[in-house]
Parts: sequence; C-alpha cells; structure tokens
Amino acid sequence: MKKWKISLLAIIVISSCQPQTKTPRPEFALAIHGGAGSIKPGQFSPVEEKEFADKLEEALKVGYKILENGGTSLECVEKVVNVLEDSPLFNAGKGAVFTNAGTNELDAAIMDGKTLNAGTVAGIKRVKNPITLARLVMMESPHVMMIGDGAEKFGEMNRVEFVDPEYFYTERRWESLQKILEREKLSLLDNDNDYDNDNDYKFGTVGCVALDKDGNLAAATSTGGMTNKRWGRVGDVPIIGAGTYADNNTCAISATGHGEYFIRNVVAYQISSLIEHARLSLEAAADSVVMRKLVKQNGSGGVIAIDKFGNISMPFNSEGMFRGSFKAGEEPVVAMFAN
Amino acid sequence: MKKWKISLLAIIVISSCQPQTKTPRPEFALAIHGGAGSIKPGQFSPVEEKEFADKLEEALKVGYKILENGGTSLECVEKVVNVLEDSPLFNAGKGAVFTNAGTNELDAAIMDGKTLNAGTVAGIKRVKNPITLARLVMMESPHVMMIGDGAEKFGEMNRVEFVDPEYFYTERRWESLQKILEREKLSLLDNDNDYDNDNDYKFGTVGCVALDKDGNLAAATSTGGMTNKRWGRVGDVPIIGAGTYADNNTCAISATGHGEYFIRNVVAYQISSLIEHARLSLEAAADSVVMRKLVKQNGSGGVIAIDKFGNISMPFNSEGMFRGSFKAGEEPVVAMFAN
Repeated sequence: MKKWKISLLAIIVISSCQPQTKTPRPEFALAIHGGAGSIKPGQFSPVEEKEFADKLEEALKVGYKILENGGTSLECVEKVVNVLEDSPLFNAGKGAVFTNAGTNELDAAIMDGKTLNAGTVAGIKRVKNPITLARLVMMESPHVMMIGDGAEKFGEMNRVEFVDPEYFYTERRWESLQKILEREKLSLLDNDNDYDNDNDYKFGTVGCVALDKDGNLAAATSTGGMTNKRWGRVGDVPIIGAGTYADNNTCAISATGHGEYFIRNVVAYQISSLIEHARLSLEAAADSVVMRKLVKQNGSGGVIAIDKFGNISMPFNSEGMFRGSFKAGEEPVVAMFAN
Repeated sequence: MKKWKISLLAIIVISSCQPQTKTPRPEFALAIHGGAGSIKPGQFSPVEEKEFADKLEEALKVGYKILENGGTSLECVEKVVNVLEDSPLFNAGKGAVFTNAGTNELDAAIMDGKTLNAGTVAGIKRVKNPITLARLVMMESPHVMMIGDGAEKFGEMNRVEFVDPEYFYTERRWESLQKILEREKLSLLDNDNDYDNDNDYKFGTVGCVALDKDGNLAAATSTGGMTNKRWGRVGDVPIIGAGTYADNNTCAISATGHGEYFIRNVVAYQISSLIEHARLSLEAAADSVVMRKLVKQNGSGGVIAIDKFGNISMPFNSEGMFRGSFKAGEEPVVAMFAN
C-alpha cells in the first residue's frame, strides 16, 4: 500500500517536470501578435475592432497557406510579418510610431530554429519591410546584426524594397507624437512611469512564430519602437534572446512590450532555457517569465510561443494583446482583450 | 549494506547537481580579458609579451584597489575597462580596429547584477571611453541600448569625454586593415572561413567581471569589433545576454570571440541559466557552453566568469586569451597562452 503511494507520487513528480503535449501534435501551426498594451473593451469602435480582427486573420491565413503547401516556418514568419508591416494598424512598417525628431526608426529580427541562424536590423529609415532586410542579413551575410546607414547600404546591394521616409507617415501616429511632445512641454511627462502609463508610447510591435511540416521552428518580430524615442534608443526586438528566439529543441518566441525589461531578463531565450534546462512545459516556462518575473519588475508586455510539439502559449501581463493562432486542420482564432 | 550504497549514490548525485564553492569565498575578486584568438607562444617578442602582461596587471590593480576600498563592482568594472580602452594594445577604445570604410565604430555594454539594470552602446565614433557612455545610458536614461549619432547626442548631454576620430588611429590596426583589403582585392578572402582564419580580423575586445564586498556582481565589455567590418555590423558585445551579463543570483560574464556565434547561443545568459536552472557549478556551466556547444559550431572565443561565491572561470576554445584574475588577499595572476 505504502509502496503504491510512493510510486504514484514519483510518477506525478516526474511527469510534472516533463514537457507536456496536451493534444496530438498538429502537422503545422503558427501564432501572431500585433502588440500588447492598454487594450480594453470599449477602447475601439466596433468598426475598428473588426479592422484589427480582419487583418490578424488575413495574416494568419497567409501563413497557414505557406505551411500547408510545405513552405518553411522561416518563409512563413517573414511573409506573415510583411502583412502586418504593410498595415497602418500596427506599430511596424507602414504604421510605425514617430521618434522625438519626427522620423521613423524601425527594428526587426528573424531566427531559424533549425540552424540557430539569425538576422537583425536596427535604426532603419527607408526600407519598406525591415523583416525582409533582417532575413537578408541572415541569409546573405556572415553577420547577425546590422544597424543604421550601414544596414541600408547592405539592403541596397541585396535589392530590398526602399521607400521614401514619407511612406511611414500616418496621421494617427503623428498625432500621438504631438500629444506626447505637448505633455513634455508642460512637464507632465518627467519620469519613466509616466511614459509607462501612456497608451500610445509603447503600443505595437508585430510578430509571428511557426512550426512547419518538417518540425522546424522560426520566429520573427518587427517594430517602430516607442513613440518619442530619442538618442538612437533600441528596444528588445532586434536583440536575439530578448524579443526574438527560436531553437528546434525547445520553442520559438516573439515578444512585445516594454523592451528594456525584456532585454534585462533575456525573455525569449529565458523561456527556451526553462524548457531545456528546467524541463518546464512551454506554458509553464512562458508563464513563469511573463506572469511572474516580469510582473514583479513592472515589465509590461507579452509573448507568443510555440514549441516543437505545436503547443501554443500567448501569455501577457498587460490589459490586452492583439493575437491569433492557427493550427493545421483547425479554424483561425483571433483575440485582443484578456480572456 | 545495500541501503548504504544507495545513500552514498544519492549523496553523490545530489552534490554533483549543486553549485560548488571550492575554496572559501574571497571578500572580493575580479577577472579581466583582453581578447581571445590565435595567441601563441613565439607570436610576440618578449618585450611585447611584457607590455601585455604589465597592462593586464595594471588594470587588475586598479580594480583591486577600488574593491578593497569598498567600491562597488559596477565602479570597478567600468574603471578597469577604461584602463584597457586607453591602451593601444587592445581592440577597444584607443586600439580599436578599423572598419572597411577606414573608420572606427565602437560598442560597449555594462550590467549591474544587483538590479539587472544595464546600458549598452553601438556604432560609437567619437567617445573616448564607450564603457563610460554605456554606464551613463544605464544610470541616466530609462533605456538599455542606444546606437550611433543618437547615443553620442545623449553622451554630449551627459558630458562624456569626446575625442577627434583621429584619436583612434594606430598604425598597427591601420596596417591590419590594409592587409585584409589587399587580400580582398586578390579575392583571397571570399568566405566566412577565410575571415575566421585571419588573425587580426577578430582579435581583441576587453572586459571585466567583479564581485564586491557587498556580494554584488557586475560585468563590462568594450570593443572595436572586427577589422574590415561593414554595413554597420554589430557583434555580441552590446547585446545583453550574448557578450555581457550579470545577475547576483548566479554570475557575471564578459565574452570575447566570434560575436555572431555568441549572439546565436546567447552565451553569457546561457551560462547564467545553466547555474540557475540546471544547477551547474560556474566552471561546469562555462565549460559546457564555451568548450562544447561553441566548439561544435566552430564558434571560437572565450569568457571570463565570476560567481556569487567568488569562483572564477576563464575557459577559451581559441589558442589563447589575454586574461587575469585577482582575489582579495592573493596575488594578481595574468596569462595569455593555453595552460
């Protein structure tokens, strides 16, 4: 009787330490985000809510089709992020927020879980799709990270699509900047917390993670950064391990939120390492970092995560996160508020 | 008898999983590096070898004095790196290598293990001590990373010391660039491996890790990057988690080597996470990443590491690494070749 109890306990303890596959592994799957922040019911009109939902679903379907046709997870995450970059709804590509100087400076990163190869760019001003430039850095150079004019020179050599900086102008983002500049003038914004409480200030970022039919994972993230950013500030997005990470042995992660906290906590890789070294499940690992470690530090934001079994986890500690997932043989799911 | 054997086995298994403190914890300690690479006996004249050893010892003594007088590990790592930056011997500050365009673009990072606060800069052209600018980013801004002109503007506001770009000129580094450009013209350098085999190409970087009397850890790294770099390439140094990491709960790390591999493997944080999550000792964790994981990928380089017990580990998989350590009450130790 006693032996029986001990054996049962042992099984429970051991199984709680093992990565769990809750449902049969889907043939392929992807998840996306369009930024985390103060996203609450009633904040957007029904028409606006539908616009967000439609664009997220469109992006999911683009990725699904690529994976269904046998495309790689790398191809999938790039093309899905392209859809979100080309939409003025999100803070990446066309909808990027403005810097203090009234310019747009874009960052992006992509990583291949099969090879651990990665490409990232920061401070990009004239490239239409920064994620495509990041993929070129990964594929066509021996380097991982390129910044500023140098990165754009590399883009020219590799015939990436350029746009006039005017392309990134949207009235909504311009007004956000004017509002913040006005508050700064009145000295209403004088510390970090004030920025934290500002809705538009760190709203945005887009990302995609995917598992393809061959079992390869990939992650991609693209952003315009923070409204009113200055001094060439770079957030977590182009930092491999912070905002973006992918490893076939563990998971693929794309993050969104208050970048400084995501850098200091090496959020994306920390989730991967909790799976690899502490043998947590994807959900437990992502929750441990996003819902506990970051919350303790007031580091707001969230992640999308997919593991090698096709499990998807999308925890966020902010009020909402634009997000969606689509598994082989299922229907696409999109959401923006807390459950 | 059987029970006795099982108990012994259990003790061995459990103790092998626990962080080990081999020697009594020193009151304070520090370690430094001046770059890893193809550093072999006979490569330098006895006079040159003495120059390197003297400068490393001088830097160690500067750090030791700060810690002995009750200074913080943060103060220590900055000031020690300043000494190495000001020397033309190492690829950081005054001795920085040249980019393809014949300019110098410097990167640096600093991290405080007590708070997880960090500051990093990349693409710096006119600041004498990039590590000091990185510390200002950490202390005087809400941000972690700043790049290029923006970072220098922030430096101006915070009265960091500027120099004419000419300051970074050294004949030795200029000749290294000319040699590589000549080989490029002759198409002798046409792939990544050729660069890997070039001695001067990725030679250098300086760093310091320290434990102070209050038990606080800190890490700092500064570099001129790779000779002949282009396209605004950024290596692992200013990437928190890759080339630099510090957490009072685990260890402080500063890395040197082929940066792209250090970014993809999140080397500095991976060592920290192996201590935290897999409960390895500092030495086992650092060896696991530098001597196994990186070796498998041909990612050459090394790290200096110190844990909260004052243990120091300095593994490298290249032929040599300029390095040194100094523990409270002991003599300074410097070395450059493999043991």
